[in-house]
Amino acid sequence: MTQPLALGIDIGGTNTTFGIVDRRGQIVEKGHMSTKGFATVADYIEELVNQLRPLIDKVGKHNIAAAGVGAPNANFYTGEIAHAANLDWKGVIPMARLLNEALHLKVTITNDANAAAIGEMEYGAAKGMKDFVMITLGTGVGSGVVANGQLIYGHDGFAGEIGHVTAIRDGRPCGCGRSGCLERYSSATGIKITAEEWLAQRTDDSLLRQHAGNISAKHIHEAAEAGDALALEIFDYTARILGQTLADVVAITSPEAFVFFGGLAQSGDILLKPTRKYMEANLLQVFKNKVKLLQSDLPDADAAILGASALVW
Amino acid sequence: MTQPLALGIDIGGTNTTFGIVDRRGQIVEKGHMSTKGFATVADYIEELVNQLRPLIDKVGKHNIAAAGVGAPNANFYTGEIAHAANLDWKGVIPMARLLNEALHLKVTITNDANAAAIGEMEYGAAKGMKDFVMITLGTGVGSGVVANGQLIYGHDGFAGEIGHVTAIRDGRPCGCGRSGCLERYSSATGIKITAEEWLAQRTDDSLLRQHAGNISAKHIHEAAEAGDALALEIFDYTARILGQTLADVVAITSPEAFVFFGGLAQSGDILLKPTRKYMEANLLQVFKNKVKLLQSDLPDADAAILGASALVW
Repeated sequence: MTQPLALGIDIGGTNTTFGIVDRRGQIVEKGHMSTKGFATVADYIEELVNQLRPLIDKVGKHNIAAAGVGAPNANFYTGEIAHAANLDWKGVIPMARLLNEALHLKVTITNDANAAAIGEMEYGAAKGMKDFVMITLGTGVGSGVVANGQLIYGHDGFAGEIGHVTAIRDGRPCGCGRSGCLERYSSATGIKITAEEWLAQRTDDSLLRQHAGNISAKHIHEAAEAGDALALEIFDYTARILGQTLADVVAITSPEAFVFFGGLAQSGDILLKPTRKYMEANLLQVFKNKVKLLQSDLPDADAAILGASALVW
Repeated sequence: MTQPLALGIDIGGTNTTFGIVDRRGQIVEKGHMSTKGFATVADYIEELVNQLRPLIDKVGKHNIAAAGVGAPNANFYTGEIAHAANLDWKGVIPMARLLNEALHLKVTITNDANAAAIGEMEYGAAKGMKDFVMITLGTGVGSGVVANGQLIYGHDGFAGEIGHVTAIRDGRPCGCGRSGCLERYSSATGIKITAEEWLAQRTDDSLLRQHAGNISAKHIHEAAEAGDALALEIFDYTARILGQTLADVVAITSPEAFVFFGGLAQSGDILLKPTRKYMEANLLQVFKNKVKLLQSDLPDADAAILGASALVW
């Protein structure tokens, strides 16, 4: 493509961020708005276009090759967002078509974790890798699986739901209607559930007790950093379930690395060190001491824009 | 490639089968020999070349594009067979190089399940599919994962070890040194272990009692076909663990189909019908009623040769 720029849009449950990005991953213009508070998708898109228009005019529309969009439950093949639990609009939304009509740009859409995987491969920790798995540890657990240098979309465009691998058979009920899914344990939400459960069941002294009933992943992180025994045990449990599941993913796709992004991933070594230990303990011999666990090194606020924009190239 | 033929060699633990195959999958020459009884790899290769020579001469060596080899624990990237539990030769065998030197043909090697996947994609039940998973249910469980029309070898060439996904945490000890691996339950070996265990622990009347201590997968199949309640329950248990694990594989790679091959797969619907039920019960909503479970329709004796030869194209 001869146009040097791409428009990247990340539609999150709470905020929408967007930017215009050059081929080397430099964000030349950016902005953000709330995703919430729009009665209809049409209202949301009208406001989004209002926000984008001045940025597009500034760089010149003829310089923009296309738009890439990351959104929860978005399907690369159909261009639709289907039944996203974390968005206000229900049902199936033909987002790629709606944005194409509004922006008069070619629009490619994929789910947020897949967009993040592409961003890491183009500009981040997975640069140059042909086989890796992106894991986002946020409200849920998302993933983007790259093999042979290509994202695996699967037959229907919905591959990469590692957050809904059954980690504990007949375990915690999940919003998906099943039980024991990885994301009920090893996400920002999952670690909070563990903390609240354990505080209610046990009598250990802990820094976390002052937050009981309203614990956040950040509280647990801070308590663990301060050496709080219960908080460290909660991280160990969270890491054990994550590490066991990663070992199974390795048996199937044998990646060079897992790259972690999202709220809980910001805990860094407090989470990744025990996760590595449990993953290694559960790996088949042939995979031991090979698979890297990396934290995303893209600047937090920009990663989503970079990932979405990289869809264009 | 202008040469119209490929040499396919399948090195099994017991037998080696080989054939010369045209582009449409017609086997024009074939033969077999024992894999066992050779003190060294060199002795084995000498005999294999003696067997191949007249076949190659018959079709004309200039008509053969290259050779493809399927073997347990073979690595596509390195051309080596590494620590194969089911072969007599220990350590790392540079099989692609040894055969290349002996045959003066380009040699491509991969593990037996990957070769089977390629055979199914070229000539069999997965013809035209871009996303599917081959599952071989034999002494162990092997697999070949195809995504975007390509086999996933992974970073190191060892991807596809679904047989060593942990199906039951802290379950039956496995030859790999870990425990609870899928292949300890849902393989020809696994179903035998279940049958022997249950016969020892329970008192039900069953056709299987006459074989106790020496039960084969075939005995269990025959008893189930005859309506034996215990045998049917054993198949149900085997299928439950297989179906649960397949549901997790779907969450990661979202294939169009699983294609089954190998001893236990010959039980057909007795295995696949309950497997489908348990897979569906464990699938995330978005994947329900989409994923096919298919039995390989390649002629049993030829499938391995076809798969190995298809590596060439």
